[in-house]
Amino acid sequence: MSRTEAAIGATTRSRLGDEIVSRINQLGAISETGEHLARIFLSPEHRIAADLILSWMRDAGMAAHLDAIGNVSGRYEGDRPGLPCLMLGSHYDTVRDAGKWDGPLGVITAIACVADLNRRGMRPPFAIEVIGFADEEGVRFASTLLGSRAIAGTFDESVLNVRDASGLTMREAMVQFGLDPEQIGAAARARRELHAYVELHIEQGPVLEQQNLPVGVVTAISGATRLAANLSGMAGHAGTVPMALRRDALAGAAECIVAVEQFCKADSAGLVGTVGVITAMPGATNVIPGRVSFTLDIRAPDDPHRKHAVAEIVQRIEAIAKRRELSLQIDVTHENRTVPCAPWLKAQVAEAVAAEGYGVFELPSGAGHDGMAMIDIADVAMLFVRCRGGVSHNPAEHVEAADADAGARVMLRFIENFRPRS
Amino acid sequence: MSRTEAAIGATTRSRLGDEIVSRINQLGAISETGEHLARIFLSPEHRIAADLILSWMRDAGMAAHLDAIGNVSGRYEGDRPGLPCLMLGSHYDTVRDAGKWDGPLGVITAIACVADLNRRGMRPPFAIEVIGFADEEGVRFASTLLGSRAIAGTFDESVLNVRDASGLTMREAMVQFGLDPEQIGAAARARRELHAYVELHIEQGPVLEQQNLPVGVVTAISGATRLAANLSGMAGHAGTVPMALRRDALAGAAECIVAVEQFCKADSAGLVGTVGVITAMPGATNVIPGRVSFTLDIRAPDDPHRKHAVAEIVQRIEAIAKRRELSLQIDVTHENRTVPCAPWLKAQVAEAVAAEGYGVFELPSGAGHDGMAMIDIADVAMLFVRCRGGVSHNPAEHVEAADADAGARVMLRFIENFRPRS
Repeated sequence: MSRTEAAIGATTRSRLGDEIVSRINQLGAISETGEHLARIFLSPEHRIAADLILSWMRDAGMAAHLDAIGNVSGRYEGDRPGLPCLMLGSHYDTVRDAGKWDGPLGVITAIACVADLNRRGMRPPFAIEVIGFADEEGVRFASTLLGSRAIAGTFDESVLNVRDASGLTMREAMVQFGLDPEQIGAAARARRELHAYVELHIEQGPVLEQQNLPVGVVTAISGATRLAANLSGMAGHAGTVPMALRRDALAGAAECIVAVEQFCKADSAGLVGTVGVITAMPGATNVIPGRVSFTLDIRAPDDPHRKHAVAEIVQRIEAIAKRRELSLQIDVTHENRTVPCAPWLKAQVAEAVAAEGYGVFELPSGAGHDGMAMIDIADVAMLFVRCRGGVSHNPAEHVEAADADAGARVMLRFIENFRPRS
Repeated sequence: MSRTEAAIGATTRSRLGDEIVSRINQLGAISETGEHLARIFLSPEHRIAADLILSWMRDAGMAAHLDAIGNVSGRYEGDRPGLPCLMLGSHYDTVRDAGKWDGPLGVITAIACVADLNRRGMRPPFAIEVIGFADEEGVRFASTLLGSRAIAGTFDESVLNVRDASGLTMREAMVQFGLDPEQIGAAARARRELHAYVELHIEQGPVLEQQNLPVGVVTAISGATRLAANLSGMAGHAGTVPMALRRDALAGAAECIVAVEQFCKADSAGLVGTVGVITAMPGATNVIPGRVSFTLDIRAPDDPHRKHAVAEIVQRIEAIAKRRELSLQIDVTHENRTVPCAPWLKAQVAEAVAAEGYGVFELPSGAGHDGMAMIDIADVAMLFVRCRGGVSHNPAEHVEAADADAGARVMLRFIENFRPRS
């Protein structure tokens, strides 16, 4: 790990970082409400943001257009026209009550890098495309990665009939936005058109801050398994049932939660396990809970490791339920494969990090990203930028200008030195 | 423990038991709704039930009246008029979606015993009063034991201004019922008028069933401390925060719940501890809970023991919070003293149990009862009757006719042999 990164960040924040922060603020002001940031897929504000990003792309010397699903797409030709591209980008939709950085930082940084090349008249031996995916968060139609899935050709057309909270279908919302839902297929790109997909994104976690590093090299987007567990025992009066005669579903669930934590803490390969939701019924101060339901979210940067961990955790929960004479129902409700970053590509990102004078630190991405869809048509890599306190999906989300600059310099260095896979 | 109780129960269920079950069913049919049993304080159905009980009292040879707060009160004179009384009874209000037995069994059994004495022309050397308390459950005005507190002279007149869910004050409801709220003080009885207060009630717990006994002798009405605990850590993304960097409030609460259970299980003096309510915030599958609140209900048949246990449990919770870097707020929200049953009186109840051929089994009452108020003007004892599965406050609440008969025979024997404290 480099001990000089803080100094480097502080002295060079001027050039790319300040422009990036200024654009982050411009985009962050485009929101459905003045109270907080919300820029939801296919909303009028989403369209205003798209047009602004397209103008930035054109200013950076790119040919830019809105594609069939609403992705903003800019192309900077290489040393001759029509070459396969290095695709860079992230998403420009947000959650509700969002921060300004999650998504836009990757789009704006990629545009800033191309603008820098363009100013210098540099034409690499490959094209560069910058993409701003229209929907990564999945807030409106309960299905995530809609933009990148359209690019990857894996868009599920049944989502077109899903209705938002106001009753509008995605099909209707697309027409309002000015898109033709019948043309979504036209957004799909072929593998031969891409050398790779590389995304810069805020970490959304506290690891880089703890490592005292502005950037980190992502090893994989961790796969996730979500489970729903239900424990049933016997409700009873909190005063009249002696401890030895109880079948307390909440005491059982508590033991399970402690066991999940212990199991994951003992792991040294990036496993994380979270119980985020718990409900105890009937839920009265003086009644022993007869039924408890809770969720489990298990992630690891390696699929066999995650699957083994899920099986072990389920076994421990089953044993606790059995010993306590609680009946257990436990089901997988959701599963995402791990998306490993391509070693050849990750190595080039790491080289750029080192060349900019930072320690090369590798970490998995526990959060999902568009690479999860892009993996179907391209090798994928990611560069993380430190964010304050690891806070994200929150107005307090923050990136220092020096760190935004560090990310941009690493990305620029990566582009300049990029060698397509031979 | 007697091995013959099942046989005795089965062969003698006829006389008192059948009449008691029939009256339980009559009273159980008087409800505000046909869907479930609800007979709430000062409702029209509450008044209909009062009149029915008064008629049963008169049929049993008692002078009966509705007192100033709506208690039904019957008096059977002893071998000369005006003697201090042995007071027997329970309450005739119910919770919503109630069982038929909780409360009425004690009132109906006491009347059945007096009726039996009356049929035989027996006049003991003391008066017998049977009371049906108007409000024990406290459903309507959020304050329990209103009937027995009026009798004990400890009624808090500020409750008269409390409004029910419909906005009616207790004062207004009393007038609708036909009572004069200014006269509540007239319901109060003096200590010199009572030899003792003895209540028969269903156990509302599973202990007698487990002991295979129809009745049990209560040692004390356990005191209770209720606490509210709040743990605050740091919310975070379930995928991006490594286990070692988490301050998970729910994992901390789970450890506390397990610790409470362990501590109470290790106790052999009737201590019980329950976490009945838990809320984890923000409460999403993929978010580490940053805040958790939960309730604690701690009971023991001995006040110093309970207080020591509460202090120990709080200390353990504090240690868990400290180790996990969670901030903790923990407050006592409610506290009830223990009401011990008077040894001389309890001994006479036990004698009656033994004389009827049952094993004498002593147990605390974890639930609250009118004795908690009556202790202020009389020595108190209680006899528990087994109920199926320990289920109470539920339509499934059930007592076998044989057990109702056993309870009545014990109570009758107790009355016949009663010696006032010398």
